[in-house]
Amino acid sequence: MDKIKKNHRPLILVTNDDGVEAKGIKALIEAVRPFGDIIAVAPDSAMSGMSHAITVSKPLYLTLVSSEEGLVVYKANGTPADCVKLALNELIEGRPDYVVSGINHGTNSSVSMHYSGTVAGAREGVFSGIPSIAFSLLDHDANADFSTAVQYARQLMRVVIENGMEAGVCYNVNIPAGSDVKGIKVCRQAKGIWTKEFDKRIDPRGRPYFWMTGRFESQESGVENTDEWALSRGYVSVVPFTIDATYQPAIEALQLQGVEEITESQLTQL
Amino acid sequence: MDKIKKNHRPLILVTNDDGVEAKGIKALIEAVRPFGDIIAVAPDSAMSGMSHAITVSKPLYLTLVSSEEGLVVYKANGTPADCVKLALNELIEGRPDYVVSGINHGTNSSVSMHYSGTVAGAREGVFSGIPSIAFSLLDHDANADFSTAVQYARQLMRVVIENGMEAGVCYNVNIPAGSDVKGIKVCRQAKGIWTKEFDKRIDPRGRPYFWMTGRFESQESGVENTDEWALSRGYVSVVPFTIDATYQPAIEALQLQGVEEITESQLTQL
Repeated sequence: MDKIKKNHRPLILVTNDDGVEAKGIKALIEAVRPFGDIIAVAPDSAMSGMSHAITVSKPLYLTLVSSEEGLVVYKANGTPADCVKLALNELIEGRPDYVVSGINHGTNSSVSMHYSGTVAGAREGVFSGIPSIAFSLLDHDANADFSTAVQYARQLMRVVIENGMEAGVCYNVNIPAGSDVKGIKVCRQAKGIWTKEFDKRIDPRGRPYFWMTGRFESQESGVENTDEWALSRGYVSVVPFTIDATYQPAIEALQLQGVEEITESQLTQL
Repeated sequence: MDKIKKNHRPLILVTNDDGVEAKGIKALIEAVRPFGDIIAVAPDSAMSGMSHAITVSKPLYLTLVSSEEGLVVYKANGTPADCVKLALNELIEGRPDYVVSGINHGTNSSVSMHYSGTVAGAREGVFSGIPSIAFSLLDHDANADFSTAVQYARQLMRVVIENGMEAGVCYNVNIPAGSDVKGIKVCRQAKGIWTKEFDKRIDPRGRPYFWMTGRFESQESGVENTDEWALSRGYVSVVPFTIDATYQPAIEALQLQGVEEITESQLTQL
C-alpha cells in the first residue's frame, strides 16, 4: 500500500459515522470536492453513537473501495476516530489540509455532540492540528435530501479555507432538514438532557432487556444564541468547540476548597 | 426488578470501563463506601477506549452480581455511559447523589480524556445534573496497587461532599502509580498528541492489518499547571472540565468572517 502524496491542490480527508455507503458521506464529498483532492476513509458499517471510541482490542483492516482522479475511498472495520487515525498514520504522506466528517443522518446538537461519532471524526483531526469540521443534517432517514445541506457545507468550507481555524478548535455544524433554510447562526451548545432513555421489553426467556431510545429536552427553551434555538428557527447552527475541556473557573474554586492542602493525616483517616 | 430507593444516607453510583470484575472498581467502592450506600453498575467486559459511546443497535441486559447491606452490584452488556443511563433510568428510584467512575487501570490525562470510557461514565452523570468524578491510576496492570489511590479518591470525595460541585462541571482525576504520591494539584488539561499509532502486521492470508498502539507526546513539556506536569512531578492531577464544549472566542471570530452573511447567490455558486 503506497501512501498517498499531496499534489498542489489541498488534500481533504472525509469520514463519517453512518458508514462508507451512506448517502451523507457522498453528499459531503460532493460539497467539498471543488476545493481539493479527496481521500475518504469511513467505517464499513454504521457507527452511530460511537462517540470518540477507538478500537484497541481487535486488529483493523483498510480496504480500498474506489479510486478515480482526485477521489480515493477506503473503508475500515473501525470507528470514525479509527478511520481518521488510519488515514493520518498509514494512508497519507504528510498531512491532509482539512478533515470533514458527515454529513450525519440525524442531529448532533447540544449534549448529543458528546455521543456523536461524526463529531469525534472531526475532533480527531483537530488533535493532529488539522482544521476540521463536523456536519449533521436533522433527518435520520437513509434517503434524506442532502441538497440544501451540500450548499451550506460548501460555503462553510469556503469560509474555513479563506480564514483558517484556530488551533485546538473544531466546528460542529447542524443543518435543518428540508430546503427552507434561513441562513447560518454561530452559537453556543445548548443545555439539554435525554430522558425516558429505554424501551423495556421481556425476551422469550422471560428476561427484561432494554433498547436505547429517549427524548431530548432542551433546558434552555427560547434562550437565544444556542444551537437548539438556531435550529428551531430554521437556521444552520455552527458551534465552535475546543478539545481542551478544562473549566478554568473551577480551578480556583477547588483550590479555595483546600484540595491542594490535603494532609497525610487526612489521607489515613476513615 | 424493584427500583432501589434512597434511604437517609447518600446514594453513590459507581461505574468503570475496565469491567465489573476489575480491581479498580473494587478499589473505588472501598474508597467511597464510608460516605453512603453504593450501587455499582459496570460493563460485563472491558470497555477501554469506548469514550462516550452508547449502544443503540442491540438490546442491553442488566444482571445482578451481588447484594449486601449498603452495596448492590450490577453488570450490563454495554458501555460505561450505558451503565449510568441504565442505573438512572431503570434501577434507581429518584436520583443518586454522586456518580464516581473508575478507578481506571491506566492514565486518562490530556487528550486521552476524550477516548476514556471512565471519564464518559462520570460525564454522563453530569448530564443528569449529578456531581460526578472520574478516577484513573497511572498503572495499566490488572493487579495494580490501588492502596494510595483509594486514600486520595476518598479525600477528594470528601471535598466534593463538603463543597458540592458546580452544575455542568466534572472532575477528571489522575493518580500517579506507587505509594510516593506528593499531594494534589488542580490543573488544566495539557496539550498533547498520540503518534505512531499503529503496529502494522501481515495476516496469514497476506493482508496488512493494524493494531492500535501509539506513544503519547506532551506538547507542553515543562509547562506548569497542566495535568501532565502535575503527574510527572508525582502529584495527583484534578482537572475540572465542562460538558459545554463551546469555545466562546471563536463565535465572534466566525461572525467577523461573515459566516452569518452568506447569501443565496453564494449558496448556488460552484
